[in-house]
Parts: sequence; C-alpha cells; structure tokens
Amino acid sequence: MHPMPDEPPIEAHARETAATAPQAFDFRKHGHAMVDWIADYLEGIERFPVQPRVEPGWVRAQLPATPPVAGEPWERIASDVDRVILPALMHWQHPGFFGYFPANASGPSILGELLSAGLGVQGMLWSTSPACTELETHVMDWMCGMLGLPEHFMSSGPGGGVIQDTASSATLCAVVAARERATGFAGTGMGLQGDARTPGALVAYASAEAHSSIEKDLRIAGIGAANLRLVPVRSDRSMDPDAFASMVRDDVRAGHRPFLCVAAVGTTSTHAVDPVRALAATCAAHGLWLHVDAAHLGIAALCPEFRAIHDGVELADSYCTNPHKWMLVNFDCDAFWVRDRATLVRALSVLPEYLRNAATETGKVIDYRDWQVPLGRRFRALKLWFTIRHFGTSGLQDLVRRHVALAGDLRARVAAEPSLVPVCPTSWSLVCLRHRDGDDATQAIIDRVNGSGHAFVSHTKVDGRLVLRVSIGAPSVAGRHVDALWELIRGAR
Amino acid sequence: MHPMPDEPPIEAHARETAATAPQAFDFRKHGHAMVDWIADYLEGIERFPVQPRVEPGWVRAQLPATPPVAGEPWERIASDVDRVILPALMHWQHPGFFGYFPANASGPSILGELLSAGLGVQGMLWSTSPACTELETHVMDWMCGMLGLPEHFMSSGPGGGVIQDTASSATLCAVVAARERATGFAGTGMGLQGDARTPGALVAYASAEAHSSIEKDLRIAGIGAANLRLVPVRSDRSMDPDAFASMVRDDVRAGHRPFLCVAAVGTTSTHAVDPVRALAATCAAHGLWLHVDAAHLGIAALCPEFRAIHDGVELADSYCTNPHKWMLVNFDCDAFWVRDRATLVRALSVLPEYLRNAATETGKVIDYRDWQVPLGRRFRALKLWFTIRHFGTSGLQDLVRRHVALAGDLRARVAAEPSLVPVCPTSWSLVCLRHRDGDDATQAIIDRVNGSGHAFVSHTKVDGRLVLRVSIGAPSVAGRHVDALWELIRGAR
Repeated sequence: MHPMPDEPPIEAHARETAATAPQAFDFRKHGHAMVDWIADYLEGIERFPVQPRVEPGWVRAQLPATPPVAGEPWERIASDVDRVILPALMHWQHPGFFGYFPANASGPSILGELLSAGLGVQGMLWSTSPACTELETHVMDWMCGMLGLPEHFMSSGPGGGVIQDTASSATLCAVVAARERATGFAGTGMGLQGDARTPGALVAYASAEAHSSIEKDLRIAGIGAANLRLVPVRSDRSMDPDAFASMVRDDVRAGHRPFLCVAAVGTTSTHAVDPVRALAATCAAHGLWLHVDAAHLGIAALCPEFRAIHDGVELADSYCTNPHKWMLVNFDCDAFWVRDRATLVRALSVLPEYLRNAATETGKVIDYRDWQVPLGRRFRALKLWFTIRHFGTSGLQDLVRRHVALAGDLRARVAAEPSLVPVCPTSWSLVCLRHRDGDDATQAIIDRVNGSGHAFVSHTKVDGRLVLRVSIGAPSVAGRHVDALWELIRGAR
Repeated sequence: MHPMPDEPPIEAHARETAATAPQAFDFRKHGHAMVDWIADYLEGIERFPVQPRVEPGWVRAQLPATPPVAGEPWERIASDVDRVILPALMHWQHPGFFGYFPANASGPSILGELLSAGLGVQGMLWSTSPACTELETHVMDWMCGMLGLPEHFMSSGPGGGVIQDTASSATLCAVVAARERATGFAGTGMGLQGDARTPGALVAYASAEAHSSIEKDLRIAGIGAANLRLVPVRSDRSMDPDAFASMVRDDVRAGHRPFLCVAAVGTTSTHAVDPVRALAATCAAHGLWLHVDAAHLGIAALCPEFRAIHDGVELADSYCTNPHKWMLVNFDCDAFWVRDRATLVRALSVLPEYLRNAATETGKVIDYRDWQVPLGRRFRALKLWFTIRHFGTSGLQDLVRRHVALAGDLRARVAAEPSLVPVCPTSWSLVCLRHRDGDDATQAIIDRVNGSGHAFVSHTKVDGRLVLRVSIGAPSVAGRHVDALWELIRGAR
C-alpha cells in the first residue's frame, strides 16, 4: 500500500553503529522477562501490604550516590526493582486499594503504553505522525458516543476531543480558553495586567467542594485565588444553583466580570453532582464559560442507567473525564472535549517557522499541540483504542456495574450498622462514612484498615467532620475484598 | 523486609471476579508478542519510508465509525497496528530521521515505561508511593552531577529537580514561579489583574530565536505576548547581552517590571547558545528570574569537552533539558531544576483535606504535585534510572560524541561543496545549510530528501532565508545513513 520506492538499498558502510544502539540491548529477552514480571506482580499482588511501610529516605538509602560510569548488567538492574522499589510502593492495582480514586489499568492498556514507547513517535502536528492524531480524534469521537455526550463535541462539528494527561491540565486549558473568550484574546496581546478595556476583575465560580486543581489552574492563569468564588453547597454537597445565580448577579453589579463556572460531576470528597442544567442557565445569561469536571464519575455514564449524571452537559462549553480512573486505561489519559475548538486553538496556538508544514496550511488537519499546554505529545490514543476494543463497550459497562454493585452492598451494611453514619450516600462506586462517636473513632477505623495491609482507604472532611472514603474501582476487586474491608471497618478482625 | 502481618488469608468468596479483570486477558502471551513486534519493528525500521505517504483522513477511513459492543479478539486488534497505524507514522526512531529534534528511545527506557504502566502507581504525594518520589529525586541528583550543573540544584540544598513532561511545561512552571516572586505571590491572592501595588506591566525577555513555547507559556500565565520582549541576536544567532541590558533599563525607566529572562542553550533553529553569564549579570542587577532552556543541546554537557555550553548556569534560577531528546529516554522526560524550591512550591501548592497525610505534615518529604501543573503523575523515574544504569555515563557520552562526530563529517562536506552555504555552524549535532541559489533551490533539496523515503529533514528560516536542518540523534544512526543523506542533499541520487 505504501511501498518503498524502487531505489537501491543504502549501501553498507564501514562505520559501525556504536554499542549504545538499541541492538546492543537484548530487548526481546529482557522484554519477555519484564512482561512476565508484571504478570506475576499483578497475579500475586495480594501478597503485598497495600500501603508500604517505609520511612522517608529509605529508598534513597538503598541507592548509590553517583551513577555508574560503565553500564551495569541488566539482571542487576532488574533485581533492584524487587529490592528497592517494591517495598516502597502503594499498590494502586491491589484489589484492597480503596483510596483516593481508582487508577485502574488493564493488560491491553499496558500494552498500548508499551507500543507507544516502542514506536517513539511525536504527535505534536498531524504531519509528524498522522496516525497519532487521527486515531486520537477517532477514539475521542467513539468516547463521546459511549458517554452519551452531545453531538457538538464530535470532531465532525465545531467542537472536538483531545487526550490530556490529567483533568488538572484539561481544566487549565478550559480556564485559558474561557479567559481569552472573555477578554477578547487579551492573553495573545496585552495580557491580563494590561487588559484595561473593561474594569473589574475576571471572576470564576466553583462549589466549595470543588477540586483543588481549579484554584491551582486559576493561579497559574493569573486570575488569582481571590477571584475564585466558592459557591455554597446544598445538603447533598452539590452546588446551590440559586446561590450561584445570586453571586454572579452581585459580581456583575459590583463591576466584576464573571467568566467561568466549573461544575463538578462527582466532587472528589463525596461524588456530589452539581446541577449542570441549572448552572448553565445562569452561565448563558451572563456569558460565562461552563466547564464540567467529571474526572472520576463521568465514566459511569458508559451505562445508560447512570447517564442522568450528564443531565445538562449539552449546554457546557467543555467537559472532561478520566479513562485512567475508571475505564481500565493506565494513567495518564484524560478525555477533554470543547464545544468550539476555534477558541481553544486561538488561545493556545503559536506557529513558528520550524513547525510550518503543508498539511497544516491546508486547514484540513488537526494539530493537537494547539489543544494543550505542551508542544510534544506521545501516542496515548493506542491504549484507549486497545482497551475499548478488547473489552468492548459492554465489558466496560460490566466493570462499572460491578463496582457500583459492590458499593451498594457495602452501603447497605453501613446503613444497618448502628455505630456508623453514612455520609452523603450516592448511587455509584464511592461509599463515605464516619463513626457515630466522632473523629477519633473514625480515625481509629482508618488506622485499623490501613494498618492491616489488606486494604487502604483515604479520608476527607464533610461539615468539619472526618469521613472515611471507600472508592471501589480496582480492576480485580471482588466481593471478598469488600467483605474483608467490612470486617476491618467494623472491627471484627 | 516488609512482610505481611500474621493474619489469616482473606477467605474465598462466592462472588467471582468479573471477566473484565486483567486475568481474562492473556497478558503474558500478548505481551511477549508485543515485545517481539517492537523488536522486529526497530530492527527492520529501515524498510519503512521515514515520512508517511498518506492523505489527511486516510487513517480514519480505515476505522469503524462506532466502537465494538462485544470485545474483539486480540489478534484482530494487534493486526490493525500493521494495517492502519504503521503506514501513517513518521518513523522518529529511523536512522534516517534528521528532522526537528531526536526523540530517541532505547530498550531499557521502553521497559521502564512498560514497568511504570504495569505498576500503575501514582506519585502525586510521597505517601502515595514513596519509591516514585525518592527514585525521582535520586536520579535527578545524579543527572545534576552528570551534566555538571551547580550543586545548589541538588535536593540536598535549597533547590531540587523534578521530571516534567516537556520543556514547555517546565518553562511554564518557571514563568509562574518568577511571576509570583516578582509580585509577592499575587497569583495566590488577587491575581495579576488585581496586582495594583506597583504600576507597569510585568515583562519577560527571550531572544528573537527563542522557542515558541515561551510565548505560549506567557500567554497561559496571563502575562501576554505583548509583554515578551524579543531581544536582538548577534551574528551567531545568540542573544545580544548588551541589547538585553539596554532593553531592561529602558523598561525599568518606563515603569515596567522586568521579571524573567529565558536564555536558550541551543536555540531550536540553529542551536545558538545565549551568553548565560552575561545575561545573569543584568538579571541580578534588576531582580529578574533567569530560566535556562537547554531542551535539546543541554544533554551535550554529559561530555566534559562540551560543558562550556553551561557557562554561567550556576547563576540561573532554573534550568531544563530533555533526556527524551538526546539521552535515549523515550518521550516524555524533561529534567527541570530550580535553585529555590520554596518559591516554586509556594506558587503551585494547594492542599485540600483529602490530600493531607502524616508524611507531608512532617515536612520531611517531597510531594512532587507541588512542582508541576497536574496533580497526578506516573513513575517516570524508572525509565531514566534504567537508561542511566544500562548505558552508564560513559555509554551516554559515547552516544553524544558519535552524533557530534557524524555532524562534523557532514559539516565538512557542506563547507567543501560550492553550491551549498553552511548556516550558523556550531560544534554539536545540528547542521544547518541552504542552497547558494536561494529558497527554491533549498526547497528542492528538502523535497528530494523527504521524497526519497530514506531520510527526513525539517526546515527553519534564518535572516529570512529558508534553511535545511539536519539534526543528528537517532539511536541507531551511523555513518552510512549520513552518507546516504549527503548523496540526497547534493543530488547525486
């Protein structure tokens, strides 16, 4: 199909390839061994305590202060993984890992990452590896349909999707695009400091339960933490849309410039779902960019019965969720869509001579460098493609349903146990609870669970009270792991 | 060393692990096959044309419009890599790839990436996987020594190193830290727009030849492209330090606030080296943050005989270079150091309840989430560790020397060829040239090279004239590949 031209092969030449060429490394042999090591690791992961038991400095104390001058035998290097690395890992793939968020991975996705590293191509421009760009556009369109997201996020319309490393970075892109839309692209000109055409500060809104990345992104973008308004939440910890509308009106009256609302579809602490549709009405009335951060929970929308979490997202300007959290794609893989790619690209595009090329000039291709902060980008679409095709959409739905069912079982047990108080119960894969007797008793549960080696949970605070979070999403978590966790929680072992 | 406690094993439970668990995928078998595929690909890479010959849309036309509902057999998925992906790749690892920058990889590094994906751990906090943080600190200290960088970049002092995805992101961190230092941490408070304590705009400086990421980062950070001063260059295309000093003085006189200078150690177009020591004197006199962007060329400092490129970097506030460009570590791996980590961390740290932990509160550990834009981070130190140990510092020096020698050979041939004009000749691995007869003739050379399938070069402009760039750095490039390129350049084939 794309054969080499009929030219003679390049002639042999006396100057040899140096010993540093990849041929000098027995990639086949050591690669097979590494695959076997990973297979053994994942199969036997339950023999490790979920949380490591090392003191700060332990890892560095095992390592020589200076690098080797001569290369070392591979066997010695590989054995150091067992000696130095393994004892100092939190085992995020362990079925007893219930902390933070699932960072679940899968065999097909790991091989996608391996292939990406092996090919070693750059996808900064379409022309620097067309497959890298086109496969990404294609699987992001697939994902758009799989999650029931609006048609206008598809690449066939004015919008489109792109893979980012994390939701933090996706939200930063949304912040910058929103800021530029609001200021008439001041960032490409005078910058915020010189944008004196209209008085008053740009202000952004998120709920008091919003993720820390929103404040961080606003700092980075020069908006400032003081210009992030934390909107009060309702009893279910979701943003109060009336309070939001009222705050926007007050800010407008005070001469400020509301420009962005970040709605959480699944807050980090309790998976509260902000009322996107109601927020969108206020955003539309006052010209705010609406970004939906569905980093973890959004993946639940793979299942039609959970798709209500996406109510109103068709009114959003941008949206992100993380296949690297709950869709078996190893970190990093955040899926980010915008309704209007032209604004994003205008905000982020700088085209120097050395990147000019014929394909870009036709206007017919996507250059994803203009959709993200970095210039370089690796071939992350492979792992998403492999994962979707291996499991199929039904397999991925099964995964979500299994985790939600396990959470439901646990939730019922918590509700029936008089010493425990369920906190903000939802219908998905996160279970939050505290002890009836207060923070010390809750902390004792956390310590018992995490000290056991069999499970790990993390915590948050709700209404000032310590809360234990059980996030169910490890790839191989099964009923017996939740049972064991339950025994630890209630102190039966 | 870290055994499991003496508790009974978790009992078996009737509820089975679902088919989506990784066990359902024969990771061992398919992993071995993928390793073999990559080994075959890299061994036989010369049979592919370096630049692909596909039209926009070709890849997507090979793919079904919707994802499969049921999972597909792995063999079908894997065979689509040959059918759909391979014909549409630029082969960056091909020894005839001389474009942009080398994105060179190596077997040990690919296995480091594989292991990182297989472990699937998160390094956002020390506590979320201590090995992920400590190994990174350790190899960054190693790198500091390997490159002859100042002792105060070491983690043992007030500075430290961190792995970023790209130099763009590292420079964004430098921009934000510099902005915050200059404004008394306004970003954590009122933001740029509200920073009315001192009049006049924050202004940044880089040479007219600086990388596009600097303007992009200044846009993102709200400084604005209009507040980037492009300092004129000298005949060797390096920044004119007198012009810089004079521009800073003029800006100060006009009431502006110079806050940042980005010096290039190796500009993208021609590898010009800005006079860091002279720039540092002006920065010190006026309180500017000095960031050194040595993305590609910095790696040359592995060899003592090239270490003059680092003259003056001990006076810089931050520095970055990319092992993923010229040190056999697959993308992404940028090495970024700061002289004063406290400023960087203060600029980027937001600590919500759900990330609080005992180790962080001791103040004795590094939490790298505060050293970068994203929160999540994967275990990138593994590939750097594997690469340094497998090749040893001498092996990596050999690689640099081999590439520099090949460039020297080519440079001599260009100099001896009357139809060609060497452009900004340096002593390292980049050779720039143009045709005596002007841009059309130069373009004809580029078209001939890139149309051959045997080699790929990219271009730039210098003094308004089209210039062909030969960047020598592919892992397996040898004399015969440069010979073949030379034959193509001079039109002998």
